[in-house]
Formats: sequence, C-alpha cells, structure tokens
Amino acid sequence: MKLRTPYLLFLGDAHDQLAAKTAAGVAYWRPEWSLGQLRLPGCKADLGLPDLTLEEAAERGAKTVIIGIANRGGVIAESWLPTLLRAMELGMDLASGLHRRLTDVAPLRELAARLGRRLSDVRHPTREFEVGSGRKRSGKRLLTVGTDCSLGKMYTSLAIEREMRRRGLKADFRATGQTGILIAGSGVSVDAVISDFISGATEWLSPDNETDHWDIIEGQGSLFHPSFAGVSLGLLHGAQPDAIVMCHEPTRTHMRGLPHYPLPSLRECIDANIAAGRLTNPAIRCVGISINTAALDDSTADSLLKQTADAFGLPCVDPVRGGVAAIVDRL
Amino acid sequence: MKLRTPYLLFLGDAHDQLAAKTAAGVAYWRPEWSLGQLRLPGCKADLGLPDLTLEEAAERGAKTVIIGIANRGGVIAESWLPTLLRAMELGMDLASGLHRRLTDVAPLRELAARLGRRLSDVRHPTREFEVGSGRKRSGKRLLTVGTDCSLGKMYTSLAIEREMRRRGLKADFRATGQTGILIAGSGVSVDAVISDFISGATEWLSPDNETDHWDIIEGQGSLFHPSFAGVSLGLLHGAQPDAIVMCHEPTRTHMRGLPHYPLPSLRECIDANIAAGRLTNPAIRCVGISINTAALDDSTADSLLKQTADAFGLPCVDPVRGGVAAIVDRL
Repeated sequence: MKLRTPYLLFLGDAHDQLAAKTAAGVAYWRPEWSLGQLRLPGCKADLGLPDLTLEEAAERGAKTVIIGIANRGGVIAESWLPTLLRAMELGMDLASGLHRRLTDVAPLRELAARLGRRLSDVRHPTREFEVGSGRKRSGKRLLTVGTDCSLGKMYTSLAIEREMRRRGLKADFRATGQTGILIAGSGVSVDAVISDFISGATEWLSPDNETDHWDIIEGQGSLFHPSFAGVSLGLLHGAQPDAIVMCHEPTRTHMRGLPHYPLPSLRECIDANIAAGRLTNPAIRCVGISINTAALDDSTADSLLKQTADAFGLPCVDPVRGGVAAIVDRL
Repeated sequence: MKLRTPYLLFLGDAHDQLAAKTAAGVAYWRPEWSLGQLRLPGCKADLGLPDLTLEEAAERGAKTVIIGIANRGGVIAESWLPTLLRAMELGMDLASGLHRRLTDVAPLRELAARLGRRLSDVRHPTREFEVGSGRKRSGKRLLTVGTDCSLGKMYTSLAIEREMRRRGLKADFRATGQTGILIAGSGVSVDAVISDFISGATEWLSPDNETDHWDIIEGQGSLFHPSFAGVSLGLLHGAQPDAIVMCHEPTRTHMRGLPHYPLPSLRECIDANIAAGRLTNPAIRCVGISINTAALDDSTADSLLKQTADAFGLPCVDPVRGGVAAIVDRL
C-alpha cells in the first residue's frame, strides 16, 4: 500500500494527548507532509499544527486524511462519519491504523467506490506474499531489534534514516507496523501477515537496491517475548540485516503484558539475534545500542549510556536525547 | 474445528499414488475411522480399502467425506461436484486439506447451508485466537522439531501417541497441519494463522490437562529454514514442551526448496531448540532423535541409528522401521 501525500491529521474526539500518539508520530517525523490537524468538539489532543477545516485542507492540497488516533477496541466512531464522508467528496483518500477496517463501514466503502477514493487500512495487508526465498539481495540493510516490544525501535529507525539522509547517504525507512506505515506512506504490518509468509513479506518490503543504499527496517517484538518471538524471527530472517541496532528500556521490570517474564540481558539478546540472523546473512553484526532513557534524569542517562558503550565496545545512544550520529558513524 | 467420524476417503481422479498421500496418511493412522475409499473413473491411486458408493458409505455410517488428494493449485475440480453434492444429500459433511476452499465453491456452499452440513477447510483456521500468554499449563507436552520441513515430524508424533496409548498412558496427538488435522479430527493449521497469534493458537491447541497426560504436538518447519522459522519458533514457545524429539532425514543435501541452504547439524539444531524453548519452559529437554531412513538399506540404517544414539546419548529411532518404544521409555 502506498499513501498519497500530503496529509490532514484527523484527531477526532481524542480524550487525551496519548490517544493521538499515532498522529503525533506522523507530525514529528513527517512535518513536510503534515499540513494541519482536524479536531472534533471535545478533542483534548493538540499536535501544535494549524487547525484546518476540510475545505482549507483541500485547498492546500491535502491528499489523504490520516485517522491518527487510538481508542478502545480500535473502532471507527459514528460521530466521525460526516467528516470522513465530506473529506472524500472533497477529493481526499482515507487511511487508518485502527483495528476495525474503514472498508467494513458501509457508508465509507460505498462512497469511496462511487468516487474512486482509496481506503487504506494499514494494519491489514491487502496483498498476497510469496514464502521467503532466503536469496541474498543487493544493497545494505539495518534492522532494529529489541529486548522487548514498544521501546523505541521505530523512533530509532527513523532517527537513523534522518541522520543518514542529512549526511547525503542513501537510506529508506521500511515500515513494519501501522504507525510506521503512516509515517513512511507505505509498508507492511508484518504481525498481521499469515505466518507462512512473514519472512517473504519482509523480503518483498526490502527488495534489491543499489550497492551503497541502506534500508532501515523497523523491528517488531523481541526474540524473548513469548507472544511475538515468531514474528521477530521471521522478520530477522527476511530482513537479512548486515547491521542490527539493539533497542532497550532500562527501567522496564518485565516483558510488556507478561508480569511473570523478566527482560533478557542486553548481551543475551544481542547474541541470540546475531546467532539467528547468521542463517540468512553470515556477515550480520551489531553496530550499536539504542536506549530509551525518557524515565531517567540527565546525569543518570548519560552515565548509563557511557557505561553501556564501554561494556559492549559499541556506540550507545538515546535517539531522542542525543541523536544517533555515533551509530551512523559505524555504518 | 472438529470433524465428525467415521470417514469416507474421496480420491477423485488422483493420477498416481502420491497424489493421494493425505488420504493414505488418514487410512494408515486412523483405520478405525476409514470405512472405505471412493474413486472416480481414471483414478490411479488405491489405499487398499473397500471401494464404496456414496449410498454404501452412508449405510455404514460415514459422517464426513475427506477430500484427501493433492493436485496442481490445490483446486476443487468441477468433475468432483456431483459426488460431493450427493454426499451432502445423504447426510455427510465435507472436509478438505486443499488450498482452495470448499466454501468458495457456490454450489457446495449453498447446498451445505440449505441442509445444515459442515464444510471444513482444514488448511484455513476459522476461529480467532488470543496472543500467547506464556502462562504455564498443567499436564505434559512433547513437541517434534526438525532439521528441515517434511521429514517425518507428523509420523513421529503419531507413532509416539500410538505407543503411549498401547502402554495405557494418557496421550493425545495435537495436529498443526492439514493432514494431521484430518487424522486427528481436529487441530489448527498454524502456518495459516495470522503471525501475531502463532504462539497463542498453539496454547489454545494444547490446553491445561491432567498432570500425567501428554500432548504430542506435531511440529512444523525448522528453526533453520529461512522461509518458515518464525512459525517454528512461535510453535515452540506456545507448545512449552517438556520434551522435544529431533527429526531428521540423513540423505537430504539442502533445506527443502532452497538449494543454497545446507542442513544444520543435529547438534546445532538440538541446541538451538533447547535454548529458544527455555524461554517458556526452563525444564525442556531432548528425549530422542527420529531419523527417516527410508532411503537407506537395512544395515546402513541400523548402524546410523546406533552411531547417532551413541554420539548423543539419546534414543535414536526410525518410527517406520523400528517404532518409537525407546523414546517412550524415556518419558
């Protein structure tokens, strides 16, 4: 799926800032595509973008309305429909990262069909994939991996893409989750692919490329997460990374959602990823560690990054606090 | 999905014995459910079962017609329809392991709906699963794993179930692929599950049970197969096996379908499964090796089994040649 840009970010009636996390990610990483926000009465989120009416957005060239909010059950609320229908009448497509599909809402589906607009449910892959071939592809690949889910793999990947492009290097972020797909404008939500095709979908996502081109592939889950390790392994095999960056959150006391499972150590997790990744790329190496230090004060964060870098002999960064330059130096 | 037994095995116009492999597996492992075979003109396969008309099968109590053949594209041939429709009129359900769905063939779907018959496309899961919880379940579990795909994991699992039951032990084969599901009468085709739910589907397949009960879970793929390792890992984590049996085919020169990938060594493959399996069951151990020696003569096979047993200090058997008693002794 390939979304048309630029975007109007629809925040609906988001009841706090966190509910608009997906839209916030798009606004942060793709300011050049984010023309403005549209908030319904009662909306408590604010991305700091211009508030635009649908007519103003259309005038400024908005091509897709991004439904960038999360809610209980991932549903499309009845109260959003007049806005979404009108947006299509004004020429815009719709894209959503919600669990429930835009295409399952009859009025949206019917109007889109009549007007030729596209409804993109980015959480649900729409194409079929081949099984993975394990064939070596041209070009270079970096994959972010992690000790757990939801600790900064997407942010780290996007920061690396940004830093590489700033230096004039050829790099493309490859999205594997719904927020990443809205940010990249394309991608595959690998955890929603039929399990026979995980590595095949990842191979498709990151095809042959120029020798000096890097795909920066967004990781998912963790080899040590009992619920999702199969996805992480299929992604690792399909990505065939030349380089991995290990992502970690130092204050987490157990695997996300599973209080009875402790986090693996960084060393154990790096070793397991290197060992498994060698199957499809014997040259795989770890080029850095990315630590999400949001919960730490400056001096604690600084000394943790320094200690970890020393212990592993690898660049160790927080992409938000200090950027990822030290990792890109290694590539 | 739960199939009604006994079965009539439909061989259609299978053009050789291999095309009826699925039905042959059912007839071999479930003679008590296999009332007979139904062959159309031109059929070259023969399971050695009585040839029954639909009317005879109905009279003898057949509850489900098993479409136990493979063909190019996995399609339901036009020429089968009169037989399949008549079977439903006589009170039978239909079950198929083909890629194309019975429920996608309008005349079958419509008649089944009208008469209240069940169409089971066992390759395609019909229910939704939870994500895996990693929670420890009561009862014991054995998982067959392998150096590659298609080398005897299902046969090994079924032989262990049969041997355990013969000894009066409590054991249930748990099917994870289409042939296995037809043999067990229920199961989940895990490689067709959405990848987020691989381990969750496996947890569902093998629920809490009596302390002295063993689930014998059919493995899939290999941690060393670049196309399918994600499935194998999710299955390993969801199964939480107390015991694994490593399955191997000694004459295979490369991973199935991938000429550029050599097979892993038995040692490497056992170690990798034990290391990964410890995440959800720290007590996991390898209790035996199952070698498919079909391609070897008796004395070569014998000496390979003995050498391997000595080298690993584990029972090493060929389930077809000599049975699996030595492995069951270990449980």
